[in-house]
Amino acid sequence: MQTLFDRLEEVYEETVEIRRYLHANPELSFKEVNTAKYIAEFHEMLGHETKRGVGGNGVVAYLKGDQPGPTVALRADFDALPIFEQTDLPFKSKNEGVMHACGHDGHTATLLGLAKVLNKMKAELQGTVVFIHQHAEELPPGGAISMIEDGCLDGVDVIFGTHLQAQMPLGEIGYRTGALQAAPDMFNIRIQGRGGHGAYPHQTIDSIAVGSQLINSLNQIVSRKINPLDSAVISVTSFVAENPYNVIADQAEMLGTVRTFKEETRALIEQEMERVVKGVCESANASYDFTYTRGYPTLINHKEETEFVAELAKKVPSVTAVKETEPVMGGEDYAYYLQHVKGTFFFTGARNPEWEVSYPHHHPKFDIDERALLIAAKTLGLATLEYMKVHAKEVQVK
Amino acid sequence: MQTLFDRLEEVYEETVEIRRYLHANPELSFKEVNTAKYIAEFHEMLGHETKRGVGGNGVVAYLKGDQPGPTVALRADFDALPIFEQTDLPFKSKNEGVMHACGHDGHTATLLGLAKVLNKMKAELQGTVVFIHQHAEELPPGGAISMIEDGCLDGVDVIFGTHLQAQMPLGEIGYRTGALQAAPDMFNIRIQGRGGHGAYPHQTIDSIAVGSQLINSLNQIVSRKINPLDSAVISVTSFVAENPYNVIADQAEMLGTVRTFKEETRALIEQEMERVVKGVCESANASYDFTYTRGYPTLINHKEETEFVAELAKKVPSVTAVKETEPVMGGEDYAYYLQHVKGTFFFTGARNPEWEVSYPHHHPKFDIDERALLIAAKTLGLATLEYMKVHAKEVQVK
Amino acid sequence: MQTLFDRLEEVYEETVEIRRYLHANPELSFKEVNTAKYIAEFHEMLGHETKRGVGGNGVVAYLKGDQPGPTVALRADFDALPIFEQTDLPFKSKNEGVMHACGHDGHTATLLGLAKVLNKMKAELQGTVVFIHQHAEELPPGGAISMIEDGCLDGVDVIFGTHLQAQMPLGEIGYRTGALQAAPDMFNIRIQGRGGHGAYPHQTIDSIAVGSQLINSLNQIVSRKINPLDSAVISVTSFVAENPYNVIADQAEMLGTVRTFKEETRALIEQEMERVVKGVCESANASYDFTYTRGYPTLINHKEETEFVAELAKKVPSVTAVKETEPVMGGEDYAYYLQHVKGTFFFTGARNPEWEVSYPHHHPKFDIDERALLIAAKTLGLATLEYMKVHAKEVQVK
Amino acid sequence: MQTLFDRLEEVYEETVEIRRYLHANPELSFKEVNTAKYIAEFHEMLGHETKRGVGGNGVVAYLKGDQPGPTVALRADFDALPIFEQTDLPFKSKNEGVMHACGHDGHTATLLGLAKVLNKMKAELQGTVVFIHQHAEELPPGGAISMIEDGCLDGVDVIFGTHLQAQMPLGEIGYRTGALQAAPDMFNIRIQGRGGHGAYPHQTIDSIAVGSQLINSLNQIVSRKINPLDSAVISVTSFVAENPYNVIADQAEMLGTVRTFKEETRALIEQEMERVVKGVCESANASYDFTYTRGYPTLINHKEETEFVAELAKKVPSVTAVKETEPVMGGEDYAYYLQHVKGTFFFTGARNPEWEVSYPHHHPKFDIDERALLIAAKTLGLATLEYMKVHAKEVQVK
Repeated sequence: MQTLFDRLEEVYEETVEIRRYLHANPELSFKEVNTAKYIAEFHEMLGHETKRGVGGNGVVAYLKGDQPGPTVALRADFDALPIFEQTDLPFKSKNEGVMHACGHDGHTATLLGLAKVLNKMKAELQGTVVFIHQHAEELPPGGAISMIEDGCLDGVDVIFGTHLQAQMPLGEIGYRTGALQAAPDMFNIRIQGRGGHGAYPHQTIDSIAVGSQLINSLNQIVSRKINPLDSAVISVTSFVAENPYNVIADQAEMLGTVRTFKEETRALIEQEMERVVKGVCESANASYDFTYTRGYPTLINHKEETEFVAELAKKVPSVTAVKETEPVMGGEDYAYYLQHVKGTFFFTGARNPEWEVSYPHHHPKFDIDERALLIAAKTLGLATLEYMKVHAKEVQVK
Repeated sequence: MQTLFDRLEEVYEETVEIRRYLHANPELSFKEVNTAKYIAEFHEMLGHETKRGVGGNGVVAYLKGDQPGPTVALRADFDALPIFEQTDLPFKSKNEGVMHACGHDGHTATLLGLAKVLNKMKAELQGTVVFIHQHAEELPPGGAISMIEDGCLDGVDVIFGTHLQAQMPLGEIGYRTGALQAAPDMFNIRIQGRGGHGAYPHQTIDSIAVGSQLINSLNQIVSRKINPLDSAVISVTSFVAENPYNVIADQAEMLGTVRTFKEETRALIEQEMERVVKGVCESANASYDFTYTRGYPTLINHKEETEFVAELAKKVPSVTAVKETEPVMGGEDYAYYLQHVKGTFFFTGARNPEWEVSYPHHHPKFDIDERALLIAAKTLGLATLEYMKVHAKEVQVK
Repeated sequence: MQTLFDRLEEVYEETVEIRRYLHANPELSFKEVNTAKYIAEFHEMLGHETKRGVGGNGVVAYLKGDQPGPTVALRADFDALPIFEQTDLPFKSKNEGVMHACGHDGHTATLLGLAKVLNKMKAELQGTVVFIHQHAEELPPGGAISMIEDGCLDGVDVIFGTHLQAQMPLGEIGYRTGALQAAPDMFNIRIQGRGGHGAYPHQTIDSIAVGSQLINSLNQIVSRKINPLDSAVISVTSFVAENPYNVIADQAEMLGTVRTFKEETRALIEQEMERVVKGVCESANASYDFTYTRGYPTLINHKEETEFVAELAKKVPSVTAVKETEPVMGGEDYAYYLQHVKGTFFFTGARNPEWEVSYPHHHPKFDIDERALLIAAKTLGLATLEYMKVHAKEVQVK
Repeated sequence: MQTLFDRLEEVYEETVEIRRYLHANPELSFKEVNTAKYIAEFHEMLGHETKRGVGGNGVVAYLKGDQPGPTVALRADFDALPIFEQTDLPFKSKNEGVMHACGHDGHTATLLGLAKVLNKMKAELQGTVVFIHQHAEELPPGGAISMIEDGCLDGVDVIFGTHLQAQMPLGEIGYRTGALQAAPDMFNIRIQGRGGHGAYPHQTIDSIAVGSQLINSLNQIVSRKINPLDSAVISVTSFVAENPYNVIADQAEMLGTVRTFKEETRALIEQEMERVVKGVCESANASYDFTYTRGYPTLINHKEETEFVAELAKKVPSVTAVKETEPVMGGEDYAYYLQHVKGTFFFTGARNPEWEVSYPHHHPKFDIDERALLIAAKTLGLATLEYMKVHAKEVQVK
């Protein structure tokens, strides 16, 4: 344990440099060509067997320890967001309109630093580490699903991953068994009324009037149709019916998101939305298109692995608190990995306690306390080594 | 003309007494037994052929002039309202909870006074006067329809009638060709949801939530579906879903009125209401009963007769203005007479110019300036005599 | 009269050519430079005193008759609309995206043809004709107001004008004393909520939810707050809150129109809208900007001049019906002229009876039956000459 | 333990008889005079010191063991509901319109049976048992608060209680640390518009239209303003504006309930409701009264005592499962006891596994499997004895 921690501290400076390089050179989801190349070359320099182009721009690298043991996957995502960075950081984005505003630069740097250290510990490593560098976490359908189809989990026994959290104090680790992140779905509604002159509403079917009644009704599904003990969100986020001041809207386009944790709630909402859209449009003699697109599934952490990591996290220096965290309504395609193998996903606090304001994820001024990278690396590294130690014998028996 | 006017002035005091007697002894629609008896006896004392029990409590009396000529019907209604009178009049209602708050006492007194005068002019009367004393004007289906079925218009050539108007200054006569009063329809809506505990809305179908959305949608039919050049009203006047504070409403009952002037608008509203009720209830998985009941038709004055009376009204002493009036949204079953014979219905101003406040019809403090009775009698009487004079020859030719 | 009619028939072919030339070369409101030049040159060729650039692109030409008499103004508008023409006419718009889809090409051709004819009748002309060629009728604040400020009505005794109506059969003339066209106002509402992540509505103020409630409430003003005997329209025609599927709307922008005939209704609507916007936004803790912009006033025809023209129209050959028309909810800045001088504005039917479909004004396939130009010219010409004849003496007396 | 269980089985038949007697003779909240007398006499017959009229109709009885030890309170409620019983039970309610439809008859019988048994075990009883027979659990402000004020918890170290659950299978015990039952609040809203004739909405302020918009807005607070990870309910359960079909509503009365678990959510809802009521009413120029009445607090079980009872429950014969239960949105004034002393409240399954339907609490056909009384008595009794055993020494030390 101490060796791991010491060596991670030795590469901390380099880890930070990597993070800053990535931060300055962000790439959008599904377009992360240079980032993928950078990652692959890093692993290749370490001598890791490295697969490029896994399920798209994904990179998978393998570190086979000299001792027999289980296969532990570690995952970091590396895509950025379509946001104009508004920080004054010296390593501010050079790719205008694109920004690492969610900490994926930190995730990747953490994993590369850890890879370098584990590589040095190859002799005593009891098993294989699979470094899953995933592209396109921010944009459904995401990169995870295609990387899995492309074999990134083949032979993997367990997977660990973390997300840096700008709203959680540095030093805290948050864990949760079961549902940690919601299933984020998307819907589109197009109302087709009948346009006409603003002075003659009786000759038209006013798509804006219909849309307004529809939104009112949709906004009542959560409060009237969902068990108050469940969590659910339906947000109509976009409503566009643009017309001159004297032309009644022929069409109205809506867009929005649904967040749920349970399959039954998810299915109920889709069904209720369909009913409401149909009924309200028929009440106004309008027609419609309604499309409901399922996004990532709910991220469900496995109990044993979650508790295992939570216990280990308490042993990481500078971890001041290990807390059961509330679930979050945001989605994460790490969920797919956990549908295939055991594992857990945890949160690493990255809020500098001296900052008065810590901007939320996806904000143009988003930033993290880089010391969180060291804590994340130590926790992931410790989980890897301890998991190997505990399960090495099982593998030998196989 | 002068004879008529003089004689009406002679009986004015008696006319007022009759009005006050009726005011003190009001009877509800379809229950006007004593009032009918009073009227019938009055005519019988004059020696008029009098039919009692015409179409219910209606009374019809006939005054046959000694000269040949057309048959002119004059109509007055005599039912009262379920209102607790709040005036300080010496002849305040003795029948608690029932009140002549719409002027029907005045209409009847006017017609009786006029009957007495015309009776004295029998020798020179060129035709027949039919006094139609109608019961139940206030309560659909009204008395007119059954009195007509019972023959009250048989042989009638023309019909005249008036309504005392407490909001129109004394001395004014209001006339209008075409639609004068709206068709007043009624609707009932019962929403059947599924009741349940207030803490578990997801197990219920909340009839109040459904009803609220329905009312919002119904309130947009007039503004979005009706030609702005037409007049229409849809008012949901009653909404009852009474429950303890922790029991979600199983049912909600609504009631209301629709007012229109045109058949196409009336039909359109019924169709749109049906569509809205169906769509909104289906959007919430609730069921419903919807009943739309047509009330009186639109009162449509005949052009020639209307202009005839309007011209004559200018000759009545103390008539200071004869004005084309706006149509009114209130209904009047006089409309049925005009579907069968020619004629007109006009308004006689009854607002005392010295009153600071003139309470509206159906108000517990409603009152009229009794001098309006004299003006009404003179106008109706003049119309009768002049119509006879003009049309006497036509009849002879027949 | 016959001379006038014969001569107008002689120039009919030329009139049609002018109309087709204008149709092929439309210009947008306030940008009608070439059209104005064309008109001005036409009058100058006839030797009329001609003012260019009156209140913008307006043109005013004067034909002084040899006989003394009153000054009669005739008005035609000449701007086109931002519409992509979809007809197959040989004289289809050459200015892509701009179209004479409201008949102003016909109005102008009518007036130029009439000008040529009246010019030939100069010797017997008892007074002065002022040809007001107005720009920018389609776009508030319109051209009329600035042309009036620039003197186009100076010395004018009366004004006549007409609008070709594609929905009225050829041969019909429609007139109406009093309010003929509504006052068209405009409003803008910007709701300022607080944006945020679609998964965390409780951290936001959802501008779309607020906007939907607002539209529902605005759509009830007409049905609950306006006298059903008045005509009024409030149409929210544009609603824009465009966001990604997971971002709750920070703002929502609305736009729309209000149509009324009476000042009291107009003022009431503005007041009620303000109250509704304020109340609904406060109920949701959102802020707002509300701007209500008055457009043209109600077009109110003068009684005497309207009846004068209606009577004369009956004498025009091929006029088959002269009818009192319903008012229309569309606005017309001719209204301003009638606030300054006496006059009237009437409708000239332009629907070819053999067309199965007659596309409405402002439609990309809009067209007129050109024979309406001749009827319009005859009616306007006759009104001019007869008005001069009747009022010539008054002027001499002056 | 075995002695306790055997003796409870011996009195089981009597316990059932008590329950059936109480079921046949139900009394409404705050009117439970005979029930209180019955309970008091039962304890007095056992020789327990018994206080009548505690905080109203409450009864408190004391059983002082011969051995020193802690004071353990056991609570059962005994009021019934205003429901017309629709069962065919031989012991159906004799008090028409009043029914034990929530199992309080069972709670009381359980406690009386247990009292009889513990009384026999007085010699070895290490402490004092306080039997809290509480009136008026169903009707806020409830009986608990006044019984506490009247001293029922004086000297009490811990309190245990249970609720029979008709939806939980017989044999199951449900426990939960922390929030078990929601805080049930109540609200009243009176909208004061301005009544008037249904045909003249513009002269009125339509309270039903205002109320409908208000309900729509209130129904969006939960979905837009409450953290989706929290549980909250706002139900408008009653809406009364009763009028004839042609009279627009002067007033509308609403009633409803709010359910929350957290103080911050509770306070937020009250604040948001106030804002919504104010804003919506002002948007319509209506006035209002809004009253928000806090009901029972959230029932929060103490961790140590809850786990203590859960562990013991596993030892009770015929308990087949001890499960962590979901919280419930229904309120319970047992919550007040837990604000003063340590303790827990648990659920005892009472659904007969052979019943096809088990009617929910407060249903006219509600019933329980009486064997649940025995399980409840054993669990409460065991908890009492074991708690005394564990804590006897602490008390001696004091």
